Amino acid sequence: MKTLQSFLNDEWITGTGGGRVLQDACTGQAVATVHSGGFDAKDVLRTAREIGGPALRKMTFHERALILKELAKYLSARKDALYATSTMAGCTKADSWIDIDGGIGVLFTYSSKGRRELPNAHHLVEGPAEKFAKDGSFGGLHIGVPKEGAAVHINAFNFPMWGMLEKFAPAFLAGVPVITKPATPTAFLAEAVVRQIVESKLLPPGALQLICGSVGDLFDHLDGQDSVGFTGSAATAAKLRGHRSVIERSVKFTAEADSLNSAILAPSSGPGTAEFDLFVREVVREMCAKAGQKCTAIRRAFVPESHVEAVIDALKAKLAKVVVGNPRSETVRMGPLASRDQVHEVRTAIEALTKEASVVVGTEMPALVDAKPDVGAFVAPTLLVAHDGPLSAVHAVEAFGPVCTVVPYRTADDAVGMVKRGEGSLVASVFAKSPEDARTLGLGIAAHHGRVLIVDETCAKTSTGHGSPLPHLVHGGPGRAGGGEELGGIRSVKHHLQRTAIQGSPDMLTALSGEYVAGAERRQEVHPFKRTFDDLQIGDSVTTESRTMTVDDIDRFADLSGDKFYAHMDEEAAKAGGMFTGRVIHGYFVLSMAAGLFVWPEPGPVLANYGLERCRFTTPVYPGDELHVVFTCKSKSLRIGTGYGEVAWDTQVIRNDGEIVAAYDVLTMVASPANAVEAPTV
Amino acid sequence: MKTLQSFLNDEWITGTGGGRVLQDACTGQAVATVHSGGFDAKDVLRTAREIGGPALRKMTFHERALILKELAKYLSARKDALYATSTMAGCTKADSWIDIDGGIGVLFTYSSKGRRELPNAHHLVEGPAEKFAKDGSFGGLHIGVPKEGAAVHINAFNFPMWGMLEKFAPAFLAGVPVITKPATPTAFLAEAVVRQIVESKLLPPGALQLICGSVGDLFDHLDGQDSVGFTGSAATAAKLRGHRSVIERSVKFTAEADSLNSAILAPSSGPGTAEFDLFVREVVREMCAKAGQKCTAIRRAFVPESHVEAVIDALKAKLAKVVVGNPRSETVRMGPLASRDQVHEVRTAIEALTKEASVVVGTEMPALVDAKPDVGAFVAPTLLVAHDGPLSAVHAVEAFGPVCTVVPYRTADDAVGMVKRGEGSLVASVFAKSPEDARTLGLGIAAHHGRVLIVDETCAKTSTGHGSPLPHLVHGGPGRAGGGEELGGIRSVKHHLQRTAIQGSPDMLTALSGEYVAGAERRQEVHPFKRTFDDLQIGDSVTTESRTMTVDDIDRFADLSGDKFYAHMDEEAAKAGGMFTGRVIHGYFVLSMAAGLFVWPEPGPVLANYGLERCRFTTPVYPGDELHVVFTCKSKSLRIGTGYGEVAWDTQVIRNDGEIVAAYDVLTMVASPANAVEAPTV
Repeated sequence: MKTLQSFLNDEWITGTGGGRVLQDACTGQAVATVHSGGFDAKDVLRTAREIGGPALRKMTFHERALILKELAKYLSARKDALYATSTMAGCTKADSWIDIDGGIGVLFTYSSKGRRELPNAHHLVEGPAEKFAKDGSFGGLHIGVPKEGAAVHINAFNFPMWGMLEKFAPAFLAGVPVITKPATPTAFLAEAVVRQIVESKLLPPGALQLICGSVGDLFDHLDGQDSVGFTGSAATAAKLRGHRSVIERSVKFTAEADSLNSAILAPSSGPGTAEFDLFVREVVREMCAKAGQKCTAIRRAFVPESHVEAVIDALKAKLAKVVVGNPRSETVRMGPLASRDQVHEVRTAIEALTKEASVVVGTEMPALVDAKPDVGAFVAPTLLVAHDGPLSAVHAVEAFGPVCTVVPYRTADDAVGMVKRGEGSLVASVFAKSPEDARTLGLGIAAHHGRVLIVDETCAKTSTGHGSPLPHLVHGGPGRAGGGEELGGIRSVKHHLQRTAIQGSPDMLTALSGEYVAGAERRQEVHPFKRTFDDLQIGDSVTTESRTMTVDDIDRFADLSGDKFYAHMDEEAAKAGGMFTGRVIHGYFVLSMAAGLFVWPEPGPVLANYGLERCRFTTPVYPGDELHVVFTCKSKSLRIGTGYGEVAWDTQVIRNDGEIVAAYDVLTMVASPANAVEAPTV
Repeated sequence: MKTLQSFLNDEWITGTGGGRVLQDACTGQAVATVHSGGFDAKDVLRTAREIGGPALRKMTFHERALILKELAKYLSARKDALYATSTMAGCTKADSWIDIDGGIGVLFTYSSKGRRELPNAHHLVEGPAEKFAKDGSFGGLHIGVPKEGAAVHINAFNFPMWGMLEKFAPAFLAGVPVITKPATPTAFLAEAVVRQIVESKLLPPGALQLICGSVGDLFDHLDGQDSVGFTGSAATAAKLRGHRSVIERSVKFTAEADSLNSAILAPSSGPGTAEFDLFVREVVREMCAKAGQKCTAIRRAFVPESHVEAVIDALKAKLAKVVVGNPRSETVRMGPLASRDQVHEVRTAIEALTKEASVVVGTEMPALVDAKPDVGAFVAPTLLVAHDGPLSAVHAVEAFGPVCTVVPYRTADDAVGMVKRGEGSLVASVFAKSPEDARTLGLGIAAHHGRVLIVDETCAKTSTGHGSPLPHLVHGGPGRAGGGEELGGIRSVKHHLQRTAIQGSPDMLTALSGEYVAGAERRQEVHPFKRTFDDLQIGDSVTTESRTMTVDDIDRFADLSGDKFYAHMDEEAAKAGGMFTGRVIHGYFVLSMAAGLFVWPEPGPVLANYGLERCRFTTPVYPGDELHVVFTCKSKSLRIGTGYGEVAWDTQVIRNDGEIVAAYDVLTMVASPANAVEAPTV
């Protein structure tokens, strides 16, 4: 039998404490033992803080993003072994897909988003600089720098791979080393994944450590540069959040806890509508996927009173077809729970619910395929319907298994009020055809949810479903759901960055942020279009000749573009509109002639203009106005392995009396000979 | 003698518990009594949740922002009375200015930022929509909706007005009612401010409640929709953060605690440099302002070993000139501490510091102007210099008074390492002439700070100083500083919004967000430029005629604009550049001719085009390409009281084979007859 090991301080170690035996969820066969202890938590933190952190911080966001992509490819090529291991946790192939391919998908998404939405830099510059002095000599901006501690991740048993990777990817991308601790019952899969990661040699030493078994006194040694990300029960979340270190040293703590998630059938979605059928299908799917062991699963199904009977009939019919048994059998749709301990927990919860609800499906265990109910951790799919009258258990007791309660409601307001009695949930689904219904219900419950899914016929085929958090969107919810936020694209990367306000002169703001701040020194020896990406420096600039605007410019531009808006063409109408004192120069012509002034026309390293950002026409321009442009290299982001980099140019079109008439960033691609296409990507 | 009252459930009440007498910090005269109790915390929360919250949520961000402006004006007109009250806390006029005018300034800033950076809407749409289905039928986006609970604010004694208003303004702007509890020793000023606010009748009932004295069992009744904002000692922060309700119900908790803030004199900033003099001036200013009772005050002054003697001499000379005494006297620069309890605390802290540092200034109380040392809460400005050898108290013990320790350092790395031993601070200042020094020191310590100020000669006159948090920038720091974030412009408004991911079809995303999402239904009966702001609906759209691009267009545009970049002009050079297959149409011409296609030229409600956002040229355009534009009303934001609103238009320039060649938002001002200039602003 396998002994699970921990990967700490760059080596695999076996715990020294008494072993705990892990069993196959279906066959009861012993599959691995876990021993706690055998390490010093201070050493583990030191490895993260003094080896992993510094190594990660030497890399840029894009360098780390590229490693995530390689890692995703590496794991993807070896996933068959992981699928086999996952089955021991009672997972059908579809269940394992969520965990394994889902986890790999998170790595791909963070790699891609990291390169698209973050600069290829060591820190993030957030928002435009603020000016605090009229003469521009003093200002401020925010930067995000990687925290210098460890990200400690405590994961739940239900998704040992996805749960680990969805926390790891944002931390790693941010430049923060991870110490990950899987839930013991399914630690065999997490250990197998970390073994592959270690074998890949893609991560720098200290970037990822794994603790199988107890974390020991790790929490005692956390400080304000560390963070804790937790997924699991509300009770454990409260215990960890209340730990002395967390409380006294302001350790950043985020929790994602099981909650009483809802699905709501809108009043207008009666039998015969597509949304009615979609609702029934989704409730059954959420009951059976992972045998209902998903923190996002639907626990409360809100149904208009008049449709309750029809809904129950439809659910009964569908549930009757669900094949339960050994997940190794291809016909099986729902496997066992992860462990027999869980069976006990779920039965206790069902018992509590029956005080307020009647069981309509699930009083008897269905015939199991290739499995024995007294050996495997099986629970029958169980549907309840809430009684009329005050409910409390229904809104508070979570049966973490294939269990759902139908709750009748009278009006939409009534439904919103009851949904909120869950005191904060990860997700709710609204099944509605009309945008009005969706708005009333969806916005009505939004403040109590981290995610709200609106399902109608038009997205029935493409919807990713109620139960699936997506790496692009926030996962987490207020109150009972833990009050945390995971994923959400780059948002969760930012959770691992310290946001620091920097104040000073424009030169100092430029020096610290690495982005040009208005008023900082500019260098004008050479036209910056002549410089390669590699030679170009922040602050390289050109101040152009002037050009005098004419009525003829307006007429020719109107003729060429076709834009004959009255404010440009008709002196009287322009005045009458109230915004202008006469025929105004087209904003698009201001942009166009500005390019005419700042562009160096000959072939050179500037390859293309791919966009504009934050363009504002701040003062109307009239015939007779003389304009020039100040065009300055604002920021650079190398596209590793492509032969070019992206350069943003701070562009100010200025009337010769000093008034800025237009300001924007011009985005270009500039050749980087030092970064040839053939270069290795990492 | 005045009895301070609480303002709860829309009325002033007097506490029923035993009274605590508050004294004038200088004269020792009893000025007010505070009685705790006399209210039911559940009622107070109910007023916030059921009266204040719903009333606030009926308003838009801009409506609330306008109230903040009126409130700022109201308080500004009545500030003389507040200054008189503030003196009782031992404040000089300069001290009171920070608190009173600083507090009013926060209201003005949030009013202005709220209207500039938030939409005039009931919720915030965050970030572009994400597409999850290839056919565009399913996607997601994030909205921010006001939390439905109360924002509970526990403030410190040092800034009873600023501290209250800097927490109130973002919560109010977000649409969340506030329950504020001032620190008892200076509650008389907070009470006076709330009296003015109540008299102004500007806030809806339940939007602001004040608890003078103990909060009783308020915390027992908080839940996941509530939040707590705390400023004060690390010990109290830990106690409140560890409260059962906070821990078990995921009450959002943010703390801003006193920290061991640093000033660092860079190695190159020796005697004779401007930065040396600025350093000395700032250390003295931070010791004396508010008698050092600022959570941002400099506690540790890091000085290169070789300059220690010169720094101490300069500090001694400056400190000798500081006049201490009754703040009512115009000659007095530094008043007493807020209370005699504080004197005891500060003396105990100095005692602890003297184990590792010697007192060089402050062994004797200076002659007091118009005050008696045994009556007023006076502490002498006290300067220490740290001994050589390991230090612990110096990096951990905060004397919350006019006390600072000079800490010698050897190298910049040495300084960075010691600054970090403060385990997280609100702010540090770096006094450096060279950007390299500023970068090494400033970025070296950034992860441990919420704010880093770089001071050099160029911003000496305009710098707002080490000790002043600005509403535009984050206030708060990691670790010992509490791990919280306040202010930071709109960032702190977002802390009061629940971020909710919405998923669904484009129509549903549009319905719930109020912004057009690509793929949603468009209405094309009338050219949307003919509709007033009031008539225009999200999704109103025009699909234009097509236009075929020609070489002549390139030549004429190059001639008119002056933009003769080789990729447009020279077939061979364009090909050789590697990005294009031949002469490419100017991006600026694509924008220009697109306007020619989508603009309705006759006078109408569209007043002006004031900008472009997120413009990307996604596919090169060549002669022969036929292009058309789909131009759709994306979002609307009424400018209350101006006669117009802002409308953003989703603009797609599409090649007739379906390829999008450019995409951007056009920003316009559109007349709103229903919103005449004369209309009342609130």
